[in-house]
Amino acid sequence: MTTRDKDSAQPRRKGRRRGAAETVSKRTPNYRQLRNPFPVMSVFSDDEAANMHETALTTLEELGMRVLLPEAVKIYAAAGARVDGDMVYIGREIVEAAVATAPKSIHCHAGGPKRDVTLELGTLAFQPGAGAPHATDLKRGRRPGSARDYREYTRLAHHFDVFQMMSPSVEPQDIAINLRHFFTTEAQLTLTDKLPFLFSRGTPQTMDNFEMLRIARGLDEEAFLNGVHAYTIINTNSPRTLDIPMAQGLIDFARNGQLSIVTPFTLMGAMAPITVAGAITLSHAECLAAITLTQLVREGAPVCYGTFTSNVDMKSGAPAFGTPTHFQASLAAGQMARLLGLPWRSAAGSASNINDVQAANENQLGLWGCLLSGATVIIHSAGWLEGGLTVSYEKLVTDVDVLNMVAELCAGNRAGADEIGFANALAHVAPSGHFFAAPQTMERYDTEFYEPVVHDYANFGTWTERGALDANSRATGVWERILAEPPGVLASPGELAALRAFVEKRTAEGGAPPES
Amino acid sequence: MTTRDKDSAQPRRKGRRRGAAETVSKRTPNYRQLRNPFPVMSVFSDDEAANMHETALTTLEELGMRVLLPEAVKIYAAAGARVDGDMVYIGREIVEAAVATAPKSIHCHAGGPKRDVTLELGTLAFQPGAGAPHATDLKRGRRPGSARDYREYTRLAHHFDVFQMMSPSVEPQDIAINLRHFFTTEAQLTLTDKLPFLFSRGTPQTMDNFEMLRIARGLDEEAFLNGVHAYTIINTNSPRTLDIPMAQGLIDFARNGQLSIVTPFTLMGAMAPITVAGAITLSHAECLAAITLTQLVREGAPVCYGTFTSNVDMKSGAPAFGTPTHFQASLAAGQMARLLGLPWRSAAGSASNINDVQAANENQLGLWGCLLSGATVIIHSAGWLEGGLTVSYEKLVTDVDVLNMVAELCAGNRAGADEIGFANALAHVAPSGHFFAAPQTMERYDTEFYEPVVHDYANFGTWTERGALDANSRATGVWERILAEPPGVLASPGELAALRAFVEKRTAEGGAPPES
Repeated sequence: MTTRDKDSAQPRRKGRRRGAAETVSKRTPNYRQLRNPFPVMSVFSDDEAANMHETALTTLEELGMRVLLPEAVKIYAAAGARVDGDMVYIGREIVEAAVATAPKSIHCHAGGPKRDVTLELGTLAFQPGAGAPHATDLKRGRRPGSARDYREYTRLAHHFDVFQMMSPSVEPQDIAINLRHFFTTEAQLTLTDKLPFLFSRGTPQTMDNFEMLRIARGLDEEAFLNGVHAYTIINTNSPRTLDIPMAQGLIDFARNGQLSIVTPFTLMGAMAPITVAGAITLSHAECLAAITLTQLVREGAPVCYGTFTSNVDMKSGAPAFGTPTHFQASLAAGQMARLLGLPWRSAAGSASNINDVQAANENQLGLWGCLLSGATVIIHSAGWLEGGLTVSYEKLVTDVDVLNMVAELCAGNRAGADEIGFANALAHVAPSGHFFAAPQTMERYDTEFYEPVVHDYANFGTWTERGALDANSRATGVWERILAEPPGVLASPGELAALRAFVEKRTAEGGAPPES
Repeated sequence: MTTRDKDSAQPRRKGRRRGAAETVSKRTPNYRQLRNPFPVMSVFSDDEAANMHETALTTLEELGMRVLLPEAVKIYAAAGARVDGDMVYIGREIVEAAVATAPKSIHCHAGGPKRDVTLELGTLAFQPGAGAPHATDLKRGRRPGSARDYREYTRLAHHFDVFQMMSPSVEPQDIAINLRHFFTTEAQLTLTDKLPFLFSRGTPQTMDNFEMLRIARGLDEEAFLNGVHAYTIINTNSPRTLDIPMAQGLIDFARNGQLSIVTPFTLMGAMAPITVAGAITLSHAECLAAITLTQLVREGAPVCYGTFTSNVDMKSGAPAFGTPTHFQASLAAGQMARLLGLPWRSAAGSASNINDVQAANENQLGLWGCLLSGATVIIHSAGWLEGGLTVSYEKLVTDVDVLNMVAELCAGNRAGADEIGFANALAHVAPSGHFFAAPQTMERYDTEFYEPVVHDYANFGTWTERGALDANSRATGVWERILAEPPGVLASPGELAALRAFVEKRTAEGGAPPES
């Protein structure tokens, strides 16, 4: 019997040859807990990295940090740092002791247990693009971010499992600043059960946020203090400045056992040295100063290392993202994080003004820099345009296809006897034949391949007949369909009522303006 | 003296503070000889990879290859292979002996010495997208490929240093098939001094091509036979078939000491098993059969391993590229190539119908699969749409920005004392200051960063004032400017006249139709 005979003789599974249109995928990929499968890449030698770390320690000792919050200055001083006005000179023994007590693994409790995220070297979590004053989509154009945008973006980020953590997506500029934290926190606590992001805009707002979190999650004081239920992002003001709200955030989150992700946001050639080595040495020093503060407040307080360093375009001074320099800065920061052994955050992003080919290429190049640097958390991994001035609904969707594919790669693959398939595939098909009906194919056709959100594999003729829609136009359809569903409300009626009552009471009291 | 005082006191280099518009880059990046700086990634364990290799050997021994060229069947038979009609069963000892004589490093002579390329594990070369029947651009739309397209695409590929090798870009369908090889070879030999690609469409055409190459490069028979001056691509007809022109190409190129890059082009679930392990085992077997033929013809003949394996969309049967499966197939092929120790070729590519965000994301994801698999040559790295049915002028340009950035990453970076810059940067700038005037910045501002071809860092307002052009529209301007320059003619007048005379003589003789 030739192989071709075998092919014809093979009983057809499922009664008949599968037609194209009948296929229904049974894939159930799990994107909720990922481990980074990519090999770690270094840009500098181990000696060079050690020298950068040493220089950062010298920078803190000899050049010092400017710390604008007196309470923080006192904490550093009490630990033995030399103080001169708002300048704090932190000895390396203080820094090294703090790094030693910072946790190497941080378990974060989300609204549901399947949403929990563990942050440690080797795990991988994505956040959508964050911090934008504007939002844009193809239906409504570019506009100042609004409450509607914030809620919609929260729902979109909730929809895609590949975002394991929420981010401060877009600024709801139509909400008064003394009440805005009520709005953003309530939206997250009711529209998603993922790990929420809380702004650090001063102690009064932070305390409100923590109370809302305790109410919505049904946590007593002890449960709250002993588990991570939310995180904030701390940006130093590079070079070498820690401002009042950021210092307060570090202190408040550490005291309450909640997570600070420390991220100096530096642009090489502007507020950081023009070299990768110089910029990351500065960023590292600032990060160490902030991590130190958390550990001085509460030994073992959850804190992530972080960086976001790219270059400016030296012709215009404009920020650039997804550049080779951005990529190398991520690699260098990864070397620093591994020296400390701490989980850490890096960032993708794009400088493009619309979701075009530049935006796609920049975001993905930046993403690969993060993945190869072994970053634990990757922010701005989707939807970020104009160097963070705008979040795009379409870009969120098109970037999700890339993130999903990375998540698929996290699952690895196998080459056992069934997969190699000498008997059930290779020997089954004659030369110049096809594998559509091979037993191996029949067993796997509805589970083997990733099914994209927005990528379209139709040929030119079919695609043209269907309207010749580009990926962006199709992405509009995707987010419209998601938002057309009624929003999920993920708190219980009792919790929801208590949350509403708290917000109404605090609103009547005038809320809390942000610290500046 | 505080650091701020130091900043003010610093004498300003170049007479005055550099203004944004005055910057002229002095960067001189070398993209012509690259080494892959990325860590190699495996998708299977070493044992699994060894099992795949063993299964491929068993496949050749027990299932056999269908070989349509009687001369090739005789060559296999003479080496001891068992033959049954056009079926050839190749014992593993024949394959193993052939792999042992295949060169591990191949030096390719281009038209100019700075264009030479060495192919071995660790080096890296890019080719633009290839083999398309159609061409498209935003000015003239999608059309059947023409002589004009072929010459223009050749000039564009020549323009960008990041393409170290030419590719069979687009089919000049308006040239008669018995004369087409004269046209494509003459265009490459006169419009570029990069390593040319020669089609293997039968011995008569190949002999014409070789003669043209000898004339244009001024090579005598001995110099030609003893150095690689051109390459061809050999696609097996999967599964397990080697057709007449491909077998002739392998034999002719091996006899003449020219390079064959063997690339089974397989789509998982269609002409290859649905699994990565099965598809790469099949591809590996076919590749081994072809490599074996070259070594039986001439021991030590230059030959590259290769693969191009992606999946079909099981809903429609349409080819998909830049998928997680495509990525893993590259990783698996890299494991096979490293088992053999041979230089090898992989491929990026896109299934998108236009140069949109999908096209960008697919091509770059596929590219990273190739880079992390340690591929020596990456074809379809720019400009490929519709799974290879069309080359896009704009996509060529936008993908070049990505390839250039990868080439920048090949150069690495340094973290010596000057780069860390404690004295010339970090200590020079006060807290909350800026580094624009730091000595380190002044020394490096015009050389430190990559300057993109098409990426635009202008802010939204400036970008809007300039016409709100997306990356594609700007890419149109880029290729129009390149083609507006007079084409370079890179052969000497004498060589050019001899080349013309040869083509005219052979045209008068009726040329040579392709073998099929």
